[in-house]
Formats: sequence, C-alpha cells, structure tokens
Amino acid sequence: MSDLLADIADVGRDAKRGGYSRHGFAPAELELRQWFTAEAGKRGLDVRADRNGNLWAWWGKPGRNAVVTGSHLDSVPGGGAFDGPLGVVSALQAVDVLRAKGFVPTRPFAVVVFVEEEGGRFGVACLGSRLMTGAISPQAAAKLTDPDGVTFGEAAHKAGFDPLRMGRDERALSMIGDFVELHVEQGRGLDVPVGVASSILAHGRWRFSFTGEGNHAGATLIEDRRDPMLPASRMVLAARRAATGGARATVGRLIPNPGGTNVIASSVDVWLDARAAEDERTREVVAEITAAASRAAEDEGCSLKVTEESYGDTVHFDPDLRDSLAAVLGGVPALPTGAGHDAGILAAHTRTAMLFVRNPTGVSHAPEEFASSDDCAAGVVALATTVEHLAT
Amino acid sequence: MSDLLADIADVGRDAKRGGYSRHGFAPAELELRQWFTAEAGKRGLDVRADRNGNLWAWWGKPGRNAVVTGSHLDSVPGGGAFDGPLGVVSALQAVDVLRAKGFVPTRPFAVVVFVEEEGGRFGVACLGSRLMTGAISPQAAAKLTDPDGVTFGEAAHKAGFDPLRMGRDERALSMIGDFVELHVEQGRGLDVPVGVASSILAHGRWRFSFTGEGNHAGATLIEDRRDPMLPASRMVLAARRAATGGARATVGRLIPNPGGTNVIASSVDVWLDARAAEDERTREVVAEITAAASRAAEDEGCSLKVTEESYGDTVHFDPDLRDSLAAVLGGVPALPTGAGHDAGILAAHTRTAMLFVRNPTGVSHAPEEFASSDDCAAGVVALATTVEHLAT
Repeated sequence: MSDLLADIADVGRDAKRGGYSRHGFAPAELELRQWFTAEAGKRGLDVRADRNGNLWAWWGKPGRNAVVTGSHLDSVPGGGAFDGPLGVVSALQAVDVLRAKGFVPTRPFAVVVFVEEEGGRFGVACLGSRLMTGAISPQAAAKLTDPDGVTFGEAAHKAGFDPLRMGRDERALSMIGDFVELHVEQGRGLDVPVGVASSILAHGRWRFSFTGEGNHAGATLIEDRRDPMLPASRMVLAARRAATGGARATVGRLIPNPGGTNVIASSVDVWLDARAAEDERTREVVAEITAAASRAAEDEGCSLKVTEESYGDTVHFDPDLRDSLAAVLGGVPALPTGAGHDAGILAAHTRTAMLFVRNPTGVSHAPEEFASSDDCAAGVVALATTVEHLAT
Repeated sequence: MSDLLADIADVGRDAKRGGYSRHGFAPAELELRQWFTAEAGKRGLDVRADRNGNLWAWWGKPGRNAVVTGSHLDSVPGGGAFDGPLGVVSALQAVDVLRAKGFVPTRPFAVVVFVEEEGGRFGVACLGSRLMTGAISPQAAAKLTDPDGVTFGEAAHKAGFDPLRMGRDERALSMIGDFVELHVEQGRGLDVPVGVASSILAHGRWRFSFTGEGNHAGATLIEDRRDPMLPASRMVLAARRAATGGARATVGRLIPNPGGTNVIASSVDVWLDARAAEDERTREVVAEITAAASRAAEDEGCSLKVTEESYGDTVHFDPDLRDSLAAVLGGVPALPTGAGHDAGILAAHTRTAMLFVRNPTGVSHAPEEFASSDDCAAGVVALATTVEHLAT
C-alpha cells in the first residue's frame, strides 16, 4: 500500500462490518477531504470546492480545456481501501512524479474529488458528478435521505454548501478538456498491472417496496397473514433467475419494517442493482423481475411500488483517447467494466478515459479488496505518463 | 384509551416505523419506569427494583405468598400502545377501584413491571422474568448485544443495576403466591370483552447466519458469486411452507451485511420465530426449515450457522386458578395464545393466570393494535375482581 493510502488507513473504519464506511458529507469523508486539501496544499496545488461539493486542486492557473484526473474518497458500507482513494492518491503521486522530472503542464491541470460516488449514504451513485452535469436536479438531490432520515440538503448545508446553489455547473464543465479516472479494477478482467476502460455496463438501481400488514408473529394465523417478506424473498430469487447472458442483478440491501423478530413485517424495502451490456437488455431484466415481484405480491395480498432511483445507459469511452492512451502506455489492454464511475457520468459531456489497476482476486466493495504495491506503483507511473502525454 | 395510557401516549413514539419503540433500559422505557414509580407513589405504593431490573410496587408490607399482577412497559420496534402498558395501567387502576370500595388486601399485594419482555433490544424475550427465574444465566444475559453493539450488561449498569448481581432471585420468587397478568389479546380469539388464558404455544427464536463472499454487484459475474441473500430468501419461503397445522413460522428480521445497494452481501442474518401447540411439533418445524436452509446454502457455496436464541416449551396455566377466575368473572371463556409472556416464564415456578382484553382486529405488534375503552374498562373491573377474590 502506498504511503498516502497508509496515511488514511485508520479513517472511517467500520468495526461492525469490517473495512470502511466513508459516506458523503459524513465525518470520515469530511476528514478525508481535509486530508486531501492538506496534501494538495503541500504540493502547491490550489484547492477549491465547486458549488456541488466536489473538490478541485489546481496545478497552476485554472482554465478551460484542462486535463483533469481524480476519483472519490467515499466508500460503500464496509468497503475496501482502494475503490475511490486509489484514484485520488495516485493523482497526487503522479504530480510528485511529474514534478521530480521537471515537467510543467502547458494545459491547465487539476485533481478532482467527487462527493458521494457510491451512493452509500443517499442512495444515488455519482451524486457529485450527476449534480455537476445536471443528470440529477438539485431539488431531487436535496430530498434524498440517509438511513437516519437526514436529507442530502441538510448534510450539504452542514458541510458548508448551499443546496439551493447546487445543480448543473457550466463553468466547471467547460474547464474539463480531458477527464481521466484511475481506479482499481473490480472484476478479474485484467492480467497485467494496468489497462484502459472500453465501456461501462448500462446499470441502475430500483427500489421495490412491498406493503402487507404488520402483526404478531405468534398470535396471527398463517391464513390471516399478508407478510411482505414472502414476495420480497421471491423477488430476490427472481433477480438471480433473470440475470442471464452476462447481465447482473443483485439484492444487497433489504430492510423489513419494523424489523422485530416476533413481528410480521408491515413493509419491506428491497433495492435491486441491475446491469447489462446494453440498455435494452437491462430494461428486459428489470421488467422480468418486476413482473415476478408483482405476481408474488399479489399471491400474498400485498401491494408493490417500484421506483427507479438511478439509471445510466451504456458508456462507451472516447475511442481515440482510449487507443492513444493504450498505445502511450505500451500497448495495455482495453476492457469493459460492470462498475459505475464518475467518469461514466462525465463521458456524455467531455472526452473521458479510465485507467484500471489490476485486482488479483476480483473482490471489490468488500474489506478484502486488494491491489499489490507494485501494481499501484505501475498505476501512478501510467497516470503520470497519461498526464504528460495530454498536458504537454 | 384510559387516562393513564393517554398520559404516556407521547413517550417513545417511533417517527420512522410508526407506533412505539420502547426498549429495555433505553430512554423511553426508563422514562416510563419513572412515570410508573410516580403513579404508584401517588397511590401510596412502595416501589422497589429487584436486582434484575424489574420494578415492584407494594400495597402495604411486602411478604410471602403475595398476589402479584403486572406486565411490561417495553415494546417491539414500532409496536402498539397496549401490548405491555395495558397490564401495568390496569393494575394501577384496579388498585384505584379497590381503594374506592374500601378493600384492604389481607394477603400481600404488588404490581410488577418486568424489563425487556419483548426482546426488542437484546433479542431474548422475557429477559427480566427469565433472569429472575434462572431461565437464562446472568453471564449469558450480560453478553447479549443491541443493534448498536451495546451489551445488556452495559445497559443495565448504566440504568443503575449491577449485572454481576443479576440472576435467579429466590427471595423475589418466594414472594409470589399467585401471579396474574392482564394483556391485550393478540389474535382474533376473543369475542367478549374479557377472557382467561388456557395455554401458550411452545415457541422460540433461532438465528440463521448465512456466510458467502462480499463483492461488487456490477463487476462480479453471476457464476463467480456466493451470495448469501439467495439461501436467506429460500429460507424465508421454507419457513412459510413448514408452518402447517396451526404451527407458525415467521421471519420479520433479516439483516444483510454490509447492506449496500451495489454490494453483494458477505453475510445475512435471518431470525426465525417458530411456534406450535406442542414442543415436538415446534422442533419438527424448525428442523424442516433448517434442512431447507442448509440445502439452499450449499447450492450457493455458502455456509450456515443456526443458533437457538431462546426457547420456551408449551405453558399450560394452572387449571384450578384458570377455572376459578373464569367463574368469578361470570363464566368468561378460556383461550390459548400464540404470544409469549412473562406469565409463561413464571408459570413453571408459581400459580399463574392471565386475563385477556378483546382485540377487535387481531392486530398486535403493530401501530394499529387496538382495544376499545369499554373493553379496557371491563379489563380493569375484571382485574380488580380477581385481586379481591385472591387477596381476601
């Protein structure tokens, strides 16, 4: 692990889940933002927050057509050490590498940290980049709530941002000429230290709310029950059945309400994460799961409401940029990814690329997520080479 | 609703779940204990806590062979207003009724409030009465944890009790000659205002912990997954299938860990509440569910650990006491219940009876739980008549 990752190895540890829980505008993420600001300051970079809560560290004078790199500092609940922070620390280390060799960028250059990329607190992934690009309205974002009922608007306000001033930021967007995000690979798709991204699967999140009738687990006859746990469970199994031909459908979050052991739940919220290579197939998978969930709800006398919480179509990264980076980096492979990224949101607005660092086990979003020191170092060199190539 | 229930109608409301969340030694329950102490004091009753955290309000001098009535003040998460508090306030109101008619008990008499009857915080129901009777060891109780990781020992200590001094209380047990608990009925088994209990189903709680492999919901191929949500869901469905012939099996609490939308869970804890008329049938139901859960875990490459968190055999209330009370109350019906109660724990140690107050909808452990004012008033009269009958 690099020195910079080691510096933050104790911030936001999750004693209960293992790994890290660092969520947007929550204490651990705020501490990491301060740490980033200090580290960027040590390197003479000038750090500014944009009005959506993203941090920008400029090397020299800010300007249009900049080369921008970076990632995020937040995590999923109980996530690993690399997803997000690796892209941020590698950017700072690439600056060190370039400084050491006397490089001075001729194009403006910045390192950016996006807020709430995982959606681990407010449910919508890539919230900072979505706000900046207008992919979510500031009104909708402000109303998102965390598990304690705190809204994103309240959390942003507490962190010093004005939710009324959030939203599409033409000025910030116009600054970005090329955006390159370095990230740990999240499957087992890379067998060399570094690669470039070709595409991101079409993916989204849907909330399935099953409502039945809360009652006593002992005193209520089976035939009198309308128990939403039954259709919720059938939906989990339907999701697995629907995920064929490379599609993915996952339920990792399911909350029965009220959640007592001796209580028949009155309602159950189930979150579906579904992805496939193309939009049409993703929609098909979700439609199949929704149909199965509706039948299951009806069988138990429950109602079902399905809400799309976020959706992103397939992202094809800029082919010219992808090919030129692959060549500059010595002919590294290009690979698709099933994971969403801020780079995917930005790809609709600017030339965008991603570098991946090998993940030997393919585990991600879990404490066991890992990349070797050698591969991380290769990532820094590749990112420095990329910046030098683009910013010269 | 009686004046006394109205007095506490704002304590421990659960804004998120609806209804009440009043858990043992948590702020709302502690406030209710203070309220009870004050109300008992107004009636000249002398309130003492026993070393297991239960409150005793004595009318006159404490002594052996006492008539004791009471219930609990805690609730399930998001529970109703009646389950527990109705038995406590009816006891205080019965004292008022008896005082008004000039009755003085010749046997010692006390109103008792048991702590953590629902197990809504620490997972084991009837914790106060189990500790008092030795049905759970104080060492095991002290280690129970709430969802925030606070142990029962820590919570008890904070509330002013010494967990090292908890455990079977011969002195307190020897005080009780007859124990009568008044409770709202929890099914649709009573079509007159008041009835007496015949038996409690054999029932228990089991924790099924499925362990798989946490990973990324987008980047992990379906064929590489070991997702514990799959066997957990199959277990929920198996529980329903196994609950035949009057048996009940319920999953109302299920927690995926880490619980992120875009994360394959690494483990899932599922709590099973299972009940049947007799011990053998309850064991059969749990064995059938366990076998199905094991097969499901194996199919997904997951492991399964099953822990019995609590168990109580069928309780047959004292037939003589039951019949004499039914007669004194004008020939009210006797009915079994699927719900567990402190009276069920005490029945193994002393003559015990229960009075039920009609529940017109059968809903319980939910905000909609209800008993009419007229029926509650009939319950008070019945309890006063019972105390007069026994304590004369």
